[in-house]
Amino acid sequence: MKFALVQMRVSEDKRNNLEHARDLVLRAARAGAQLIALPEMFNCPYSNRYFPVFAEEKGGESWQAMAQAAKDARVFLAAGSMPEREEGRIYNTSYVFDPDGREIAAHRKMHLFDVDVPGIRFFESKTLSPGSKVTVFDTPFGRLGLCICFDIRFPELARLMALRGAKMILIPGAFNMTTGPAHWELAVRSRAVDNQVFVAAVAPAREEGAGYVSYANSMISDPWGTVAHRCGAEEELAVVELDLSRADGIRAQLPLLSARRTDVYRLLPDEKTGD
Amino acid sequence: MKFALVQMRVSEDKRNNLEHARDLVLRAARAGAQLIALPEMFNCPYSNRYFPVFAEEKGGESWQAMAQAAKDARVFLAAGSMPEREEGRIYNTSYVFDPDGREIAAHRKMHLFDVDVPGIRFFESKTLSPGSKVTVFDTPFGRLGLCICFDIRFPELARLMALRGAKMILIPGAFNMTTGPAHWELAVRSRAVDNQVFVAAVAPAREEGAGYVSYANSMISDPWGTVAHRCGAEEELAVVELDLSRADGIRAQLPLLSARRTDVYRLLPDEKTGD
Repeated sequence: MKFALVQMRVSEDKRNNLEHARDLVLRAARAGAQLIALPEMFNCPYSNRYFPVFAEEKGGESWQAMAQAAKDARVFLAAGSMPEREEGRIYNTSYVFDPDGREIAAHRKMHLFDVDVPGIRFFESKTLSPGSKVTVFDTPFGRLGLCICFDIRFPELARLMALRGAKMILIPGAFNMTTGPAHWELAVRSRAVDNQVFVAAVAPAREEGAGYVSYANSMISDPWGTVAHRCGAEEELAVVELDLSRADGIRAQLPLLSARRTDVYRLLPDEKTGD
Repeated sequence: MKFALVQMRVSEDKRNNLEHARDLVLRAARAGAQLIALPEMFNCPYSNRYFPVFAEEKGGESWQAMAQAAKDARVFLAAGSMPEREEGRIYNTSYVFDPDGREIAAHRKMHLFDVDVPGIRFFESKTLSPGSKVTVFDTPFGRLGLCICFDIRFPELARLMALRGAKMILIPGAFNMTTGPAHWELAVRSRAVDNQVFVAAVAPAREEGAGYVSYANSMISDPWGTVAHRCGAEEELAVVELDLSRADGIRAQLPLLSARRTDVYRLLPDEKTGD
């Protein structure tokens, strides 16, 4: 399976972002990509000031533009994330479209980024509401899981996706220049190794001087924790060949999922009934 | 708190291993250490051939030697691990002694190391039985968690220790030359960051040509994922000053434990009752 990771630049002009994303998706498809992933908030600067202004209902301009891009490119498109408005609330939402332009998955960021660390202070909950659903979906390449940025911080969520059959987890994300160097690679690789899945984390390109500076460094880890590709700070379109069935081989050799002591601990809601 | 990490050589002579461990504990105490940690199977070569031969009941020669060492050195001693025999079964067991030589904790390895990866094939379950208890215990420095080697592979166990109040997790371990370079640091640092605890993983020194070659590289990660000390391959006694209350500060800035979505997922048995 040819996977494209699109570390794109995000501007303050929504229409421009949508056109730029479409161009990159078509370019990735021409390079053979069958599954293409965009970054978190690819259509909107990462800022509480912009989220309410850029937010759209499902089926709005940005949703339509990405559905059309998937259809025109004949690819599966994990369209990063965008601010979604519904019934007076705003969510950080990721939509996935199939090659017919149909939405096949949607994930609302479940863990909002509320931190006050020396170097970075941000409270998503000022404008956003969290989702409450674990998201996996099927493709011809295998079952995929989907979560957004700070969601990766919580091993429970990645574990639930793996228990639900995910062989790869897609993470549109935008760590910053404090947490990025400290934790981005660690989080990507450890979720991959612990859950014996591929993990692809896709960030916006870095823009020095922006209100929120993305660490960038989009990367893919295989289930052994080997980094299959890592971007730098600049805009980049990377196409990488992945074999998701490799997860099965590693699970057989190093049985981390099957050796869990479910007689001692269990993760709700999936492992509710016990002896 | 002054913590000593003892990356000791392990020989095929049990008496010699006990004397060597005692010497190192006394030396660490003279260097000011208040809590001292030895490696996995510090009194016995890591081999299914030796485990049954070296195994002792609780209170046996090795247990007594370590109780006495803790008492003579006036330290808390996490005495690595040793093969323990009870009612016809053998466990990989870690005992902890207080400065009066009293046992204050014991952990039986819960996840046995049964792997068949290119480069390493080992089946602990041929001779060992697993324990089934999560282990935390109190010291004047804070509450500590304790698990052994392959146990670290399972995020659920570290999470349970953190939920039970551990500010530091001790892990006698012995990764090998295949899984060590690939996953040892990743596991130590990711458990520390995810659970906002200190993690100290202590391995035997490397002995090329041994039946099982320890990766060594004993290390301590702080709750931010910064490596406070990392040994090489050789025998080494490292004394490091740690402030376990630093975990509280990081938990306040980056609220990974409190931001868990326990309305969506819960880890049994600790989070059984719900809304």
